[in-house]
Amino acid sequence: MKKAVVLLSGGIDSSVTMAVAKNLGYNCYALSFDYRQRHKVELEAAKKIAKHIGVKEHLIISFDMRKIGGSALTSDIEVPEGIKEGIPITYVPARNTIFLSFALAWAEVLEASHIFIGANITDYSGYPDCRPEYLHAFENMANLATKIATEGKIKFVIEAPLLYLTKAEIIKKGVELGLDFSLTWSCYDPKGKPPKPCLKCSSCLIRAKGFNEAGVTDPLLK
Amino acid sequence: MKKAVVLLSGGIDSSVTMAVAKNLGYNCYALSFDYRQRHKVELEAAKKIAKHIGVKEHLIISFDMRKIGGSALTSDIEVPEGIKEGIPITYVPARNTIFLSFALAWAEVLEASHIFIGANITDYSGYPDCRPEYLHAFENMANLATKIATEGKIKFVIEAPLLYLTKAEIIKKGVELGLDFSLTWSCYDPKGKPPKPCLKCSSCLIRAKGFNEAGVTDPLLK
Repeated sequence: MKKAVVLLSGGIDSSVTMAVAKNLGYNCYALSFDYRQRHKVELEAAKKIAKHIGVKEHLIISFDMRKIGGSALTSDIEVPEGIKEGIPITYVPARNTIFLSFALAWAEVLEASHIFIGANITDYSGYPDCRPEYLHAFENMANLATKIATEGKIKFVIEAPLLYLTKAEIIKKGVELGLDFSLTWSCYDPKGKPPKPCLKCSSCLIRAKGFNEAGVTDPLLK
Repeated sequence: MKKAVVLLSGGIDSSVTMAVAKNLGYNCYALSFDYRQRHKVELEAAKKIAKHIGVKEHLIISFDMRKIGGSALTSDIEVPEGIKEGIPITYVPARNTIFLSFALAWAEVLEASHIFIGANITDYSGYPDCRPEYLHAFENMANLATKIATEGKIKFVIEAPLLYLTKAEIIKKGVELGLDFSLTWSCYDPKGKPPKPCLKCSSCLIRAKGFNEAGVTDPLLK
């Protein structure tokens, strides 16, 4: 059975991406990161989603991106309210590159040719490392970086099945695939115990707009 | 003053690379990794080298590559004696890609356009992620991955000044630049307390051959 490493944050996009990979018949190996993100609560969502969809293994790699900083998600910079023009301060320097690099390492060991990522460019937050030209460049690099590809045993493919979908379309696809969205987490700036979504950050607002346009009630807010 | 992030393992190649960067007039930001490598003792060498050469900052990022495994350096697979044909079992899946990705993140935050890596293809161990075509592909990807490059503020350059040098030439260059090789560490499989080089692994053998051909006594073995 074909294997895929799937980057799983516990948000809508990565969860739907994993549901898509599973539906395509892949044995899924979920990969999440504790990078000392402000919204570390998303890892609890990732664990629930991995169990809900059914994965062969769920690996969580830890490292401290606060040592590098430069983002509202990994420093004391406040998460802004609303959706801003341009690339926002919630952009984490080279985050997808770091995530995909670990995915590549694991894929090489597993001999999994496919790496799934929930990148999308419609209704996205302007992150450069979600664009198709970036993903193609990573794929090209990946095939030069690794022993298994150099020896011709595997050609790595970066799959971003949601790349051109709107958030509403992504949500509809998730519903169609039986995904329980009550298990997902999107908020960048959770408050309280147990943590609740702020409903003000860009991630909360994009989520709300997506559910609204899909004509679906967000079960997380019930 | 121009800034550079320099990958520093504490071995000969990365130490000479940092001496070269310093000599070129860069303010150096040294980056090392505790990835639960078998020869973690190299981090002590990295600290000494960073101090010896003089860096603005030395950052050590920790993560557990044993969760991924697939290498004699990050699992219980034994380090073989001697130098083998082809890509050896000491190859760590996607290691340079992971290292360069963190370097890219830090370079973006520092607004440092140059990232130095001690990759070389002569007298090397056959690692795919030391080849020029790989480094070019990473550089291309890096400039698509990041906010600062996308906005046109910086064009990232991956510098591998030792790429085409033999180990003997690298050692001579280090001597010329006043590098104290007694502070460096190469052995993959150190034994004892305090740890001593095994003198049998490929890294020890390549080091010995290099010093021999350079006509220099290895101060580590005095």
